[in-house]
Amino acid sequence: MDDDYSSWVPDAEVEEGLRPLPASAAWLPGDEPGRRQFLAIEGLPLESDPLGWIDVTLAYETWGHLNEARDNAVYVAHAFTGDSHVSGVAGDGHLTGGWWNGLVGPGRPIDTDRYFVVCANVVGGCQGTTGPAHPHPVDGLPWGSRFPWLTLRDMVQAEAHLADHLGVDSWALVIGPSMGGMRAVEWAATFPERVRAIGAVGTTAETTAEQIAWNAAQTAAIRLDPAFRGGDYYGAADGAGPYLGLGIARAIAHTTYRSEQELDARFGRRAQIGDPLAPDGMFAVESYLDHHADKLARRFDANSYLRMIHAVNTHDVGRGRGGLAAALAGFEGDALVIAIDSDRLYPLSNSERLAAALPGAVEVTVLHSDIGHDGFLVDSTGLNDAVEGLLRRVQARV
Amino acid sequence: MDDDYSSWVPDAEVEEGLRPLPASAAWLPGDEPGRRQFLAIEGLPLESDPLGWIDVTLAYETWGHLNEARDNAVYVAHAFTGDSHVSGVAGDGHLTGGWWNGLVGPGRPIDTDRYFVVCANVVGGCQGTTGPAHPHPVDGLPWGSRFPWLTLRDMVQAEAHLADHLGVDSWALVIGPSMGGMRAVEWAATFPERVRAIGAVGTTAETTAEQIAWNAAQTAAIRLDPAFRGGDYYGAADGAGPYLGLGIARAIAHTTYRSEQELDARFGRRAQIGDPLAPDGMFAVESYLDHHADKLARRFDANSYLRMIHAVNTHDVGRGRGGLAAALAGFEGDALVIAIDSDRLYPLSNSERLAAALPGAVEVTVLHSDIGHDGFLVDSTGLNDAVEGLLRRVQARV
Repeated sequence: MDDDYSSWVPDAEVEEGLRPLPASAAWLPGDEPGRRQFLAIEGLPLESDPLGWIDVTLAYETWGHLNEARDNAVYVAHAFTGDSHVSGVAGDGHLTGGWWNGLVGPGRPIDTDRYFVVCANVVGGCQGTTGPAHPHPVDGLPWGSRFPWLTLRDMVQAEAHLADHLGVDSWALVIGPSMGGMRAVEWAATFPERVRAIGAVGTTAETTAEQIAWNAAQTAAIRLDPAFRGGDYYGAADGAGPYLGLGIARAIAHTTYRSEQELDARFGRRAQIGDPLAPDGMFAVESYLDHHADKLARRFDANSYLRMIHAVNTHDVGRGRGGLAAALAGFEGDALVIAIDSDRLYPLSNSERLAAALPGAVEVTVLHSDIGHDGFLVDSTGLNDAVEGLLRRVQARV
Repeated sequence: MDDDYSSWVPDAEVEEGLRPLPASAAWLPGDEPGRRQFLAIEGLPLESDPLGWIDVTLAYETWGHLNEARDNAVYVAHAFTGDSHVSGVAGDGHLTGGWWNGLVGPGRPIDTDRYFVVCANVVGGCQGTTGPAHPHPVDGLPWGSRFPWLTLRDMVQAEAHLADHLGVDSWALVIGPSMGGMRAVEWAATFPERVRAIGAVGTTAETTAEQIAWNAAQTAAIRLDPAFRGGDYYGAADGAGPYLGLGIARAIAHTTYRSEQELDARFGRRAQIGDPLAPDGMFAVESYLDHHADKLARRFDANSYLRMIHAVNTHDVGRGRGGLAAALAGFEGDALVIAIDSDRLYPLSNSERLAAALPGAVEVTVLHSDIGHDGFLVDSTGLNDAVEGLLRRVQARV
């Protein structure tokens, strides 16, 4: 959900078709690992299938060191199209720079000189962890359409394996934005004794009809792309992947990530190319969305995108647990619930519902941003203050 | 933007592919005219092309009679996927019942026993007026991709020809919702002496970046459909039209037409088919959007849809007129500007901008609805009262 549009210039090579987009931008075994470390998990059960399981390799990154008391570990859970690269620069196997550099790093609120920070790419993702682009263990061909439909609970179970592996009995904090915040809440419900605090930023405890509706159009656009081939596009003879469908999905999603006010103030009715009265003219906001569509297609995988949609759609912390409040009743840790006032995808009411279900008197911290949902990446001062305050409280309790 | 979902059952025949959707649901010359009357206009100029023009036949309907004083004529301007069938029932050449039956008809606020009510399908539409599905005058083949990209101003010029033809020197009222309201404002700017009052319902005087953004994803989805064939799909050997792409466009649009609150209250996380945890499960809100996608594909034409998007995107009453206030300075009539409080596609701020630009102290009438933009079709009491009040004022001035 980054937004470095100002630095973008159209890529003439691509427009002329000289350098086609990849069928998938997934990181594959054998690619440059960069900062990634790996953990093999055998037989991860699948919530959607009582008999189902999958062997996965989790790609994760760490920053700092676990102290002797083992009480300084922070898990950062990435969002929908995020990955393990929370902090750092792009290059050497990482397609993008750290997606939360403002919050995580040396001297930052989640100070990697002080905390042992961990982030893994989710199961089904496309930046190192086993996902649809990876080889199937039986035939060695890409999983493709055969890849299972995981839930956020499955992903959290994999994250718990990683905690075990790293010797983290209990996280000082599990924090994430958007789909990452959903997993933070799942951690509190599933492993209340292993989480001393959660940070749920711009998120919800149960995906709403509205959010499912936006996802429906995105799913349909990807499936409509003839290059999607039902999900088995990796070995296509022409090398083409469903980047147009994936791009449309991104354009829809990106619009929901921003606010009406910001789009209007930033682009208005300005023309980008030619005269918009003519059929080949283009408004600036159209060019902006094209840019974000293209950019996502160059760093993501359509099958992974559909797995993330499924995981978000099925997100309901209260499912099978007697409802939301009952699901969270056992959580005794601290909680930071942050809403962005202009967020229309995860509106304030979602955060209020979550806060009301958490034990204790949790108040929603409302941050002001003109930008909408993406405000958690762009307008960071209020977020930084809130996270610093939370970590001070957690430390004081030790 | 109707919403009779409750009466819908999945069509097994279609699901099994026994009865394919039409390539286009456009009304074509030779089809049953129903209530349609026709007016030929030669050489309608095109704003987008100083040398361009098109011969068009306008399909229109009328209700009631023009009185001797010729002061009882009301023009109703239809919205994006609307047509001339404002009032009445479905059947006999009309695919849908009257889209504004609550407001227009015998004994209704726009009383057809008292007023001479007129509505024409816009140029480029698909319910009788010349549009992309119609035969090109030179070769007799469908216009398809060759059909010009008209603006709302072009459409209003055609409507003025119709007024001339009907002997209407001045409308007592030009009223419309959404894209119809845009044309009502265009009438006030272009022919101030021919309009005694306008009604602009849930609309804007200039399309915003946000609205263009939603249209961009819809356009891309239609163009991505392989059955679109660049717009020349009418004579395709397999008879298939781009109804999947058109359906996705509709699903996006329909979500913007409703409110988050309504979708959540009405559908929540309810399952429609199977277990949504499984890949073949389906949430109720997904089924609802599928229904609306399918329904539009059975009554519309993808090329017309793209022409409507172009007309809406280029809508800017102030363009080439020194801005919005200057464009409307000559209008001395009455104005009703109505916003629906839950409308997120044409939010209150759009109506406020329009009202502020109109001469005199025009106040926005804010109607309450839980539904969003579509509230103008569903929650009609406040709308009816406001229109009755406006017509009383107009009559008192005669």
